[in-house]
Amino acid sequence: NSPQVVTALNFAVLLLALGLCESLQRGYVGEEPEPVAEPSKYGSLWPLPQKVQISDVSYKLSSSNFRIVDGKLSYADPSCSLLQDAYRRYFDYIFGLTRKHGPKSGRTGPSELTELQVWITSPDTECDGYPSLNIQLLDLIYYIVFILFPLFLGLETFSQLVYEDEYGVKNVNSSEINDFPRFAHRGILLDSSRHFLPVQVILDNLETMAMNKFNVFHWHIVDDPSFPFMSKTFPQLSQKGAYHPYTHVYTPADVKKVIEFARVRGIRVIPEFDTPGHTQSWGKGQTDLLTPCYSGSKPSGTFGPVNPILNSTYDFMKQFFKEISTVFPDAYIHLGGDEVNFSCWKSNPDIQKFMTDHGFGQDFSKLESFYIQNLLDIVTTTNKGYMIWQEVFDNGVKLTPDTLIHVWKGNQQQYQKEMANVTSSGYQTLLSTPWYLNRISYGQDWQEFYKADPQEFNGTETQKKLVIGGEACLWGEYVDATNLSPRLWPRASAVAERLWSAMDVTDLGDAWNRLSPHRCRMVERGVPAEPLFVSYCPREYNGV
Amino acid sequence: NSPQVVTALNFAVLLLALGLCESLQRGYVGEEPEPVAEPSKYGSLWPLPQKVQISDVSYKLSSSNFRIVDGKLSYADPSCSLLQDAYRRYFDYIFGLTRKHGPKSGRTGPSELTELQVWITSPDTECDGYPSLNIQLLDLIYYIVFILFPLFLGLETFSQLVYEDEYGVKNVNSSEINDFPRFAHRGILLDSSRHFLPVQVILDNLETMAMNKFNVFHWHIVDDPSFPFMSKTFPQLSQKGAYHPYTHVYTPADVKKVIEFARVRGIRVIPEFDTPGHTQSWGKGQTDLLTPCYSGSKPSGTFGPVNPILNSTYDFMKQFFKEISTVFPDAYIHLGGDEVNFSCWKSNPDIQKFMTDHGFGQDFSKLESFYIQNLLDIVTTTNKGYMIWQEVFDNGVKLTPDTLIHVWKGNQQQYQKEMANVTSSGYQTLLSTPWYLNRISYGQDWQEFYKADPQEFNGTETQKKLVIGGEACLWGEYVDATNLSPRLWPRASAVAERLWSAMDVTDLGDAWNRLSPHRCRMVERGVPAEPLFVSYCPREYNGV
Repeated sequence: NSPQVVTALNFAVLLLALGLCESLQRGYVGEEPEPVAEPSKYGSLWPLPQKVQISDVSYKLSSSNFRIVDGKLSYADPSCSLLQDAYRRYFDYIFGLTRKHGPKSGRTGPSELTELQVWITSPDTECDGYPSLNIQLLDLIYYIVFILFPLFLGLETFSQLVYEDEYGVKNVNSSEINDFPRFAHRGILLDSSRHFLPVQVILDNLETMAMNKFNVFHWHIVDDPSFPFMSKTFPQLSQKGAYHPYTHVYTPADVKKVIEFARVRGIRVIPEFDTPGHTQSWGKGQTDLLTPCYSGSKPSGTFGPVNPILNSTYDFMKQFFKEISTVFPDAYIHLGGDEVNFSCWKSNPDIQKFMTDHGFGQDFSKLESFYIQNLLDIVTTTNKGYMIWQEVFDNGVKLTPDTLIHVWKGNQQQYQKEMANVTSSGYQTLLSTPWYLNRISYGQDWQEFYKADPQEFNGTETQKKLVIGGEACLWGEYVDATNLSPRLWPRASAVAERLWSAMDVTDLGDAWNRLSPHRCRMVERGVPAEPLFVSYCPREYNGV
Repeated sequence: NSPQVVTALNFAVLLLALGLCESLQRGYVGEEPEPVAEPSKYGSLWPLPQKVQISDVSYKLSSSNFRIVDGKLSYADPSCSLLQDAYRRYFDYIFGLTRKHGPKSGRTGPSELTELQVWITSPDTECDGYPSLNIQLLDLIYYIVFILFPLFLGLETFSQLVYEDEYGVKNVNSSEINDFPRFAHRGILLDSSRHFLPVQVILDNLETMAMNKFNVFHWHIVDDPSFPFMSKTFPQLSQKGAYHPYTHVYTPADVKKVIEFARVRGIRVIPEFDTPGHTQSWGKGQTDLLTPCYSGSKPSGTFGPVNPILNSTYDFMKQFFKEISTVFPDAYIHLGGDEVNFSCWKSNPDIQKFMTDHGFGQDFSKLESFYIQNLLDIVTTTNKGYMIWQEVFDNGVKLTPDTLIHVWKGNQQQYQKEMANVTSSGYQTLLSTPWYLNRISYGQDWQEFYKADPQEFNGTETQKKLVIGGEACLWGEYVDATNLSPRLWPRASAVAERLWSAMDVTDLGDAWNRLSPHRCRMVERGVPAEPLFVSYCPREYNGV
């Protein structure tokens, strides 16, 4: 239902590959041995492609001569800035500080690679489309071949194959790579309500997501503490509900900027507008939206979840989500639905009467379902699909078949049971429970993230296919611009590989050997990705 | 024995103070109440001075008119750049982005404060001295008075009293403050061996330490993984033992820079050269320094702790610490002595023979003591005092009476017992056990750091007086330039107040109300100090 252009940027590129990188950690002798990153036969590729063959034949790259170009048979429109921007971005990544400016030298060495040809194999190369959930693989071959998809992912893989030899020369080895993601939905959730995240922080994070082949930015944009989204229809929501109406809001231009920055990196932006709970900040700018709580027979002056018994609530939601559906081009909206606290509803006599009238008895989950049901009907008219947190499914709300159920609760046994239940009911699902990266602990916790697998539950093959992926969540209670990047990276990289690479890619040792140089590569690209353990990078972070 | 000039910069300043700052967190209504920072009657002062009286009388400050000047009766030499630099630094902090350049306006308002007079009350104002352990209080008074010490601390307190009103005008209230630190030794340990810390990271941290009135930088400069200290006497130590001999070392100029940057902020630099364990990196550049381990009857090729049975070891240490004692001007050196693993010593037949010859039997702690005893004798000849980790005391090594025993092991009960033991033996001590800030966990762990008290153990008043303070430690296994600042601040601020303020300053609520704006102040000054909880700052971190 939404354009699928980026995903149709089929292509193949002249390829090559990666000599074994040098160890990035110094070995220890004697007492207190420390883990040492050894060279992996897969170099520093992260996440690991589906099939990798790296030969010993290496080619040199010179920044004077090397060019990334549209292949001769490519369907790409030369004016497609999406492509040209990506070429420039990856040229920068590949050559970094060592690149020289100036014309071609005119002389090339005997084993020099001068061209990376990008071959878009589909005529459907609309440059202005948005990435979507569906992906499409291809098998076209050019030169020393391999397959990548989509473009950004291919360029990322190529750039990861390039290594620096002891003389500082960039090299790439002849290689054969066949690649595609295991899961279509590979997301990061950021929370811009508990702390406001300046736009630049979000953009930086999108850049790093692309380096890790994440393709969904789940933007938990509003919640109880603040409402930074500036609505054109209801401007008072952010005027009253944001931490500050000018300095702590996302303007329509900001939102556009985020969406476009994501789009040209193959990343979808799925906004979450969580109701009926988690809406305290909504109530500041929208009178009568929230339920008045009672203390005995009188209103206490505080408010609870969205008031589900008023027609005005649904009129508001209709207008609000109509706007949201045009602001965010993605085919999906996340509607939340988690953690609804019933105590305020219980205290309110009007709600109680409504419950009786509708025969809900004292079962407030029926009232919750009543609200959600109405909301889903509203959103369905906007032609969007929806994602919801697992409670909505658990409470038995009627859902359209294409609803995505987002599992986030419980321990391993519980979430695996939930995944089984959801898929046996025929719904698509994605997993976040083991990937709440805001929860920190001392040590190498990336290994636990790495071990979790969204398809590990009792279920049929059909059920397993309903798992579309997962999301690493960085809730904002303790996170803002000061610490977001080092807290998220490279811990989220562990999730990235789980969601991209083959199911049997589970060797922690090889993961360590590739993740260590991958984290140094992020550092070199300017990302303050924290260290995995005792180690050093050839080029340390200098953004201080 | 070392110059004590900065500590002799006695002074008093014209003073004033702080209207109640506005709450920095938005309150919540209804469900999910969140903690809200309320105004404290002590404003945003952190750490809390010993006596504070803030009146309602406020004065305005204008960046055109306001000046920090030497008081008329001050002994300060006008050419003392130490002072002039501090004036400029705090002028910048006070006015931040709002400051205007240009001459005095010539017009001042009726309730405008135009001058902060800094009165150095001691004639002993050598500008080139180093801060030392001893501190000296003063009671001289000038104008609306109060006392601060030393200079930097007074300026920091003054700058914390300045607040911005709703029109962006800087204000300060008439106030009376009497202040002095509870403990003389208030330190931060950084580890530049497990990860190399670029000099700029260290300088930035010193700047933040000054904002929190820490006065000791414990530089755990070398350890097993790397030896970044460039020795003039033994250059091969860093040439072979650093992660990289050029990019990952501290040159003599770097070390000087760190010491001077610290000095002009009233911070002492105490280097730690830990032996005989934690020395793997030393062995790379110094043949025969470490003990060869044996596998059966043959050397295994690996090495253990420093070899304590060779004369060459002590010749090396003599020369090495002679250099160290001149490079670092502080009166103390930290000699480590922790975590000596005996297995390699046990495996070595030469060591075994030495043990037998000296009647040590199989008690390797006697061999350790033998080594440490020799080392202490060597260091004593350099006229330095020494700090050592608690094991050295625990093993019964003979120590000079002025030795500082650094307690770091065990749970609360165990470290309190250790503090009692150490002080009942008449030694001075400092505590780190509850303040291993490298250990992270989810939630507001600053509260636990805040609750710990170094004088809380069974002991006499005399014993309690032997507690000179404590240190927050940020060991480097998981810390480098990418995440050091947000991981350390404001968590270390909790330790700062414990070590500075009166023993009965233990109200977590008031601490929260002052620490929240203090953390925002650090952010505004450019420090990526992480959030304490759901909140916002008027000016968010923008260093991304």
